[in-house]
Amino acid sequence: MTQNTRSFQALFSEAGEFVEARLQELAEMLPVPAPRRLRESMIYSLTAGGKRLRPILCLKAAEVFGMSWDVSIPMALGFEMIHTASLIHDDLPAMDNDVLRRGKATNHVLFGESLAILAGDALMAWAFEYPLSALSKSNVPAERICEAMRILANSLGPFGICGGQVLDTDPESMETGSDFPFKVAARKTAVLIAACVESGAVLGGADQAAANAFRTYGNHLGLAFQMVDDILDVTSSAEELGKTPGKDATQNKKTFVSLFGLEETRWLAHNETEKGINALRTIEGDTGFFAALSENLVERTR
Amino acid sequence: MTQNTRSFQALFSEAGEFVEARLQELAEMLPVPAPRRLRESMIYSLTAGGKRLRPILCLKAAEVFGMSWDVSIPMALGFEMIHTASLIHDDLPAMDNDVLRRGKATNHVLFGESLAILAGDALMAWAFEYPLSALSKSNVPAERICEAMRILANSLGPFGICGGQVLDTDPESMETGSDFPFKVAARKTAVLIAACVESGAVLGGADQAAANAFRTYGNHLGLAFQMVDDILDVTSSAEELGKTPGKDATQNKKTFVSLFGLEETRWLAHNETEKGINALRTIEGDTGFFAALSENLVERTR
Repeated sequence: MTQNTRSFQALFSEAGEFVEARLQELAEMLPVPAPRRLRESMIYSLTAGGKRLRPILCLKAAEVFGMSWDVSIPMALGFEMIHTASLIHDDLPAMDNDVLRRGKATNHVLFGESLAILAGDALMAWAFEYPLSALSKSNVPAERICEAMRILANSLGPFGICGGQVLDTDPESMETGSDFPFKVAARKTAVLIAACVESGAVLGGADQAAANAFRTYGNHLGLAFQMVDDILDVTSSAEELGKTPGKDATQNKKTFVSLFGLEETRWLAHNETEKGINALRTIEGDTGFFAALSENLVERTR
Repeated sequence: MTQNTRSFQALFSEAGEFVEARLQELAEMLPVPAPRRLRESMIYSLTAGGKRLRPILCLKAAEVFGMSWDVSIPMALGFEMIHTASLIHDDLPAMDNDVLRRGKATNHVLFGESLAILAGDALMAWAFEYPLSALSKSNVPAERICEAMRILANSLGPFGICGGQVLDTDPESMETGSDFPFKVAARKTAVLIAACVESGAVLGGADQAAANAFRTYGNHLGLAFQMVDDILDVTSSAEELGKTPGKDATQNKKTFVSLFGLEETRWLAHNETEKGINALRTIEGDTGFFAALSENLVERTR
């Protein structure tokens, strides 16, 4: 780990602006053979703002191994599509039934349930099609592309987001043990965040040890991220949060805060942050951005 | 094209039994880190029967270029997962709202809407994860795997099933022209069927011309298949069909039959069948199975 001379915030904003610009280009690229209403629904959610944390993680991890953003961006945008798709489905009436996301009406409120389900499905498929198509035209070895895509698929599937969402929303799947919020957060949040850094590293040419270290880092970062999310759900207003606060308590969800309280959860989040930063130490290359990111995310207020 | 000595039915059954056996093995493989209720919901729909047409198409197309079923089966099962996932979502209350599929209760009737949405999502992700993971351990060149997966992703996304489903279910996307049923069927049905044969061919090592010819064949086969489906929806009983008949008329769908009538639709289906068989003629290798399949499917009664 070395320390960057430029401030973390400047580096994060720079990558975020790059992602945002490329997302806008992509939205204009989604061509006419797709039905107009489907395109509108997909693009509405994809360009509805957000921190763009996941694609930034992917770009920056590939960068550690010398890969330029121009090459890794399709993979990074694949992760943003997966994330957006999962949010659209999470917000559905049959799931969390939420009307507000990133300060805007949720997809199904605007486009109806049927189109929201299909926009989520289409974004999931496009998350694979777009990187597979774009990267095949680059000089990235196909073996790396396959492995990066496998990691992406794993983060969405039964062992990732979908599995976590079942634990989080299905009454019959809930457990009473104190490790349950860890189980849910590991799948619902941490697997995707870990997949962003791991697949970015793989794409960039990391060896197995470095890719594993990035995955470990990402898993700890993801847990810390979810803990702070649970804290903010209790302590923030809708305006600060851009989504409906107090939802967890209303829905009787077993969160870190409901199980451990605010203070203990804050301590847990700092603990995960420290573990994540420790995992970075084995990686050769400049991982200062990731250490700063961890410290920054644990202090975030929205 | 050459003529197989064994009957088409025997060849189709043989491949179908292979697919069925591997699907059962796969169901037992879906490991414990996925929540139990999610596994049950995914496996329920995946093993609920059906003709297994799509994986058979993929296996048999790869076979034309000398690839054994043992190598191509993960890709073939990926297509069955995509197909099953799309059926689970199609049947949802917000979409076609159907309670019967393949003679059994639909997924959401048994597991609830939330779990049905997530089982569909998880099957879509697993359709990528499983082939990417299994094929990376084979000696299939990674470039072929990437291209086959890109074709799979394309068949599900905004230009494929999801696009077709929007045209089919979204009132604002409906058009009055006589080409509308062709547009819907091309995306909703034909793209996936074409993707099965094209990606099987690519995986097996077909050159670009042969892969294109297989895609053309698949597109015509898919259109014929949807035309016969529309006919059977009018002429069959629930027992014969294994799903609710007469649905199209109830839902005021613009089908081939509602636009062209039964006789004209039968003629159109035979026309597409002939075009499909013509496309096979440019392919070097034994494509007799596919010609027989086309002729068989246009005469099917369920």
